[in-house]
Amino acid sequence: MKVLFSFFPKQDQQTSLMEKFPQADFIFRKSLDEEVLKTADILVTYGEDLCASHLETATQLKWIMVASAGLEKMPLEEIASRNIMLTNARGIHKTPMAESIIAHILSIKKSLPTMARNQRNGEWSRKLNSSELFGSTALILGVGAIGSEVGRLLQAFGVRTIGCNRSGKIAPSMDAMVPFSKLKETLPDADIVISILPSTEETKHLLTYEQFQCMKQSAIFMNFGRGDVVKEEELLRALKEECIAYAVLDVFEKEPLLQGHPFWEMNNVIVSPHASSHSSQYVIRALGIFSNNLTEWLNGSDQLENIIDAKRGY
Amino acid sequence: MKVLFSFFPKQDQQTSLMEKFPQADFIFRKSLDEEVLKTADILVTYGEDLCASHLETATQLKWIMVASAGLEKMPLEEIASRNIMLTNARGIHKTPMAESIIAHILSIKKSLPTMARNQRNGEWSRKLNSSELFGSTALILGVGAIGSEVGRLLQAFGVRTIGCNRSGKIAPSMDAMVPFSKLKETLPDADIVISILPSTEETKHLLTYEQFQCMKQSAIFMNFGRGDVVKEEELLRALKEECIAYAVLDVFEKEPLLQGHPFWEMNNVIVSPHASSHSSQYVIRALGIFSNNLTEWLNGSDQLENIIDAKRGY
Repeated sequence: MKVLFSFFPKQDQQTSLMEKFPQADFIFRKSLDEEVLKTADILVTYGEDLCASHLETATQLKWIMVASAGLEKMPLEEIASRNIMLTNARGIHKTPMAESIIAHILSIKKSLPTMARNQRNGEWSRKLNSSELFGSTALILGVGAIGSEVGRLLQAFGVRTIGCNRSGKIAPSMDAMVPFSKLKETLPDADIVISILPSTEETKHLLTYEQFQCMKQSAIFMNFGRGDVVKEEELLRALKEECIAYAVLDVFEKEPLLQGHPFWEMNNVIVSPHASSHSSQYVIRALGIFSNNLTEWLNGSDQLENIIDAKRGY
Repeated sequence: MKVLFSFFPKQDQQTSLMEKFPQADFIFRKSLDEEVLKTADILVTYGEDLCASHLETATQLKWIMVASAGLEKMPLEEIASRNIMLTNARGIHKTPMAESIIAHILSIKKSLPTMARNQRNGEWSRKLNSSELFGSTALILGVGAIGSEVGRLLQAFGVRTIGCNRSGKIAPSMDAMVPFSKLKETLPDADIVISILPSTEETKHLLTYEQFQCMKQSAIFMNFGRGDVVKEEELLRALKEECIAYAVLDVFEKEPLLQGHPFWEMNNVIVSPHASSHSSQYVIRALGIFSNNLTEWLNGSDQLENIIDAKRGY
């Protein structure tokens, strides 16, 4: 049985897999090796290197493990039509992303950027206009693993959490829930609006100038899901007009963010270069999911973690 | 009954006190009015303006409310010998201070200062060397209201909390406790060392070069208690020698921090200008405690909140 990796884990991570599964033939490559793929049973990929055409000759392929959460670049139709099992690493982002989101919120609330500027100028100034997170209200768009973890941490800080998704059905760590259709009337209540939405037909351009106008002038807007949930030009307009106080953006319509884009120089924008999910624990956790699943699979079980319906894409 | 304030609350805060206590004669001044003090029954002060000599002529004074937590600048002996009741606003710092402490920790863990520098340079760089707070260990020196609140929040982030005080007796939100005498042997376990200790004979210069040498090279040291708990010159040496990774300092031996002090320019030091307890809610909360206590006092009760034994100083 041949397991092809299209990325290169650390030596000890490779060794640990080979020791645990002596029956498997692991082939680690720094990118997708199309020759090896033709005879591989399993492909482990970050999900950005596989095309439909690759699958035509990958006649042995039974399982693709995507070691990330995003599946937008995967040839889902071909995977579905060839009955290849698809799993991903959903859930491993929740700890680093929730920590990043809370980090940015507290940094703004406690005026850390101003404090840093004062330090660079050698200026002892206690007038920082800090405010408290305690007692504020957060609206969380997207209440999966990450959104719920953000909600749990915010609740620990005494924040009221309102979740928002398609159905409006209750989710963990949310004090209240609203469906997308009630978004506009809920926006004025929120001190912090956090999108962790994936890119789908329903979420694309969910947030336009109209929505930003409904937010508090003191609101912090955060996009940590996908760039196209926001009409970027309209967010820019709202920020220039100071409809809201701050935007913290981890994702953009085009990444990397273009040189010379106004966001780089705006005092009310934090540019986080799609970095919020980074973690020294990332590969370890993704390989942990894969390793557990491989044990199940070798035992003939179909009780694998994070199986994706390729037809639906989630 | 005459109540003298040596600071000036907002108009609505003044009005609300006057309406609640029509029997009292409130006199609000921007600094200590020594003439009015001679006939005042109650003094409400931030605790930095009263000398022993003032008390000699304040013959009517029965109660001093200090609208902060620090009592170092109060003439405690004279207050004790004249049997004046002393209360303070202990506890109101816990929310803003704990939020500030977590803000700084997450900011460092998530490399927000590097991210901000990259943004100023228009540089999209995902190599930020971020790490996770989850799974780390924090040693909290001083486990009163603030330390316990910091412990509670850290535990929510999956941090192991070790408290440290004189007795080593268990305190809320601590996974373990050690007494000061076991400090040195506990320091190597901690990823984050946070001092929220007051200035007393026992805590003065508790942390010297020797203690910093025991910490992890990757450790973040935070002083949010009192400056003289640390031998500042020895901390400076430890930082220059990179015995530890970061110091976040809200308090200093001399405040404001002197112009030209090396801390201002060090990349591994965050200078927080004694700002961590600031909050828009500060005066509201302090006056809340005072107002409740005044009701009790007018009813002849001695069940007041935060009564201080002036002889002991706490």
